[in-house]
Amino acid sequence: MACLMTRAEAPAGAGGGHGPLPRGAVIGMVGGGQLGRMTSVAAARLGYRMHVLSADADDPAMAVAWRHTRLAAPDDAAAVDAFAAAVDVITFETENLDLRLLALLERHAHARPSVAAVRLAGDRRLEKAFLNRIGVPTAPWAEVISAEDIARFVQAQGAAIVKTARAGYDGKGQMRLRDAADAGRVFDALGGVPIIIEAMLPFAREVSVVLARGADGAIAAFDVTENVHRDGILDTSTVPAAIDAATAARATEAATRVAHGLDYVGLMALEMFVMPDGAVLANEIAPRPHNSGHWTMDACLASQFEQHVRAICGLPLASPARHADAVMTNLIGPEGAAAWEGLLAAPGTVAHWYGKEEVRPGRKLGHANRVQPRGG
Amino acid sequence: MACLMTRAEAPAGAGGGHGPLPRGAVIGMVGGGQLGRMTSVAAARLGYRMHVLSADADDPAMAVAWRHTRLAAPDDAAAVDAFAAAVDVITFETENLDLRLLALLERHAHARPSVAAVRLAGDRRLEKAFLNRIGVPTAPWAEVISAEDIARFVQAQGAAIVKTARAGYDGKGQMRLRDAADAGRVFDALGGVPIIIEAMLPFAREVSVVLARGADGAIAAFDVTENVHRDGILDTSTVPAAIDAATAARATEAATRVAHGLDYVGLMALEMFVMPDGAVLANEIAPRPHNSGHWTMDACLASQFEQHVRAICGLPLASPARHADAVMTNLIGPEGAAAWEGLLAAPGTVAHWYGKEEVRPGRKLGHANRVQPRGG
Repeated sequence: MACLMTRAEAPAGAGGGHGPLPRGAVIGMVGGGQLGRMTSVAAARLGYRMHVLSADADDPAMAVAWRHTRLAAPDDAAAVDAFAAAVDVITFETENLDLRLLALLERHAHARPSVAAVRLAGDRRLEKAFLNRIGVPTAPWAEVISAEDIARFVQAQGAAIVKTARAGYDGKGQMRLRDAADAGRVFDALGGVPIIIEAMLPFAREVSVVLARGADGAIAAFDVTENVHRDGILDTSTVPAAIDAATAARATEAATRVAHGLDYVGLMALEMFVMPDGAVLANEIAPRPHNSGHWTMDACLASQFEQHVRAICGLPLASPARHADAVMTNLIGPEGAAAWEGLLAAPGTVAHWYGKEEVRPGRKLGHANRVQPRGG
Repeated sequence: MACLMTRAEAPAGAGGGHGPLPRGAVIGMVGGGQLGRMTSVAAARLGYRMHVLSADADDPAMAVAWRHTRLAAPDDAAAVDAFAAAVDVITFETENLDLRLLALLERHAHARPSVAAVRLAGDRRLEKAFLNRIGVPTAPWAEVISAEDIARFVQAQGAAIVKTARAGYDGKGQMRLRDAADAGRVFDALGGVPIIIEAMLPFAREVSVVLARGADGAIAAFDVTENVHRDGILDTSTVPAAIDAATAARATEAATRVAHGLDYVGLMALEMFVMPDGAVLANEIAPRPHNSGHWTMDACLASQFEQHVRAICGLPLASPARHADAVMTNLIGPEGAAAWEGLLAAPGTVAHWYGKEEVRPGRKLGHANRVQPRGG
């Protein structure tokens, strides 16, 4: 298996050595969507209970979670403090969090990953500056404070994509341009908030590495996943990726470097572009279980959600080995909902529904893993 | 794969043809233990929500279930009626139910399996008479109404075991005897409630077949499992069982006959003895997910819990094929709890904890599946 499992020396300040959380301990999840939902199930199997902090007690996670605290607003300090006091570890299902909420969470020390890591991953400026600082290459990028910045970048780099620095996901808050003459239009559309610009390079494929890092610095990386996006939203993830071993090793090394660099505890993903020459450029850090790791639920003995729980609770990481090849397909919007019944009857397929009541275009409603045993 | 999947003609009254329950429908579970807990997780993944009826809102299932109705007493009609009105289908995690509760449940038509099937499986007299009536052999047995019945049976059959007809599980309510002179002592100990006596035959091994049957009569049977009990409690279940194909076919045929004979909808198990000559004698029907089917959680794409949900919700049954060999070990009492940490670090092992707060001798606290890919 190409997956990687190493045990590193615990870096200073890793917070190791406290022993695992006892069974019955409570995991506090910031967010009540599908990632929290699937984490709760993994937590329960390991004897933990999940307490969700979110705006709505009917969020998808609550069908399988233990307790809920309602966050009335991003600056609801009473809710955050009550939640923090009720749980043994705080964790996250999204990095798209209001800065006021992050500030409230930062007052509590028992977050895994750290609030600082989540804050960094939630801001493309901090994220890309960090990646470059630790020696992980990215596409050329720049902060933007004027239409002229955009025009100058496009003149130098060619086709580019402008993105809001914060609160973007699934392709939201992004615009592409090829011509410097469009700079004013793009800036007017997005420039009301902090933005960056990135060169659009002719990459060969998109991949991600999903890995867990324990407080002791141990790393367990799943095999590199190949991802295909459609309309800015992940459509399919496939393992094995169609890349050679050297490229896979570079991708895994980049993600490992990020995890150590952040002194990260928990599961994270690094999304990357693979260039035609095999070079690997980092795109985004996800400080949480990631859509491109959903295949692990049915192709590994321990899923990304179990690894996340193990890491944040101080349990030993499980082997990331997979026993099957897999293709994960997201079920998105009305088209995804319409595919459901067929998937339930499809051989070699495991279908996962997230329990969202409303079917909206572009909304992730579930996913299906088609798996095929290895070496068969 | 030796597992069996057939589509039978729908027998009259099978309740087929109503179409599947829509996503978001509510499964009502009678009982809040570990079987309800694992069923709730499977239900959520398929888009259903679980509402539990039990005496205690802190029961193990409630860490991952949606709603709870408190049953204050076995004759709490208001609770049963409120529960029945709130759910789209009623199902069970145990057949050890008070007759008053069964009578209350019987007034509601949307139970799968039927209350009649649960009642039959919960009474060894009804169960064994049914098995013999449909041509499924059992060990010789008799109802007992006096110490003389016991003495006469032991004189004719030799070593025997006396069991309470109802409310026995995990070896509780059972006494063995070899000598007719012990009949009075055994009758005095157990005879305050209805009892039966069975011949103790020198079987070669114990096996079970876990299968699901849909309302349309379709059957999906998992591979035959070999079970080892210790102190009357299931200790390990192993697939494949060390039996030949003809014996496996007889076992699967017996379970299939039971399912059709009960017009059963849902997942059930038939526990059997395999005699030295390969003959198969039925022991017990479990009208619910069964401990000997826990290996399916990590060795099949669809577990016994998913199959149960599929069957009772009218979804197509999944393939019961397994991709791995497996040994399931129960974690029982203090010894099981002490094994937990080691199991979390054991290769090829998936550990499941049930979230019970109190560790008592003989209590099932979790299980571990050790799996090994087939054909490796």
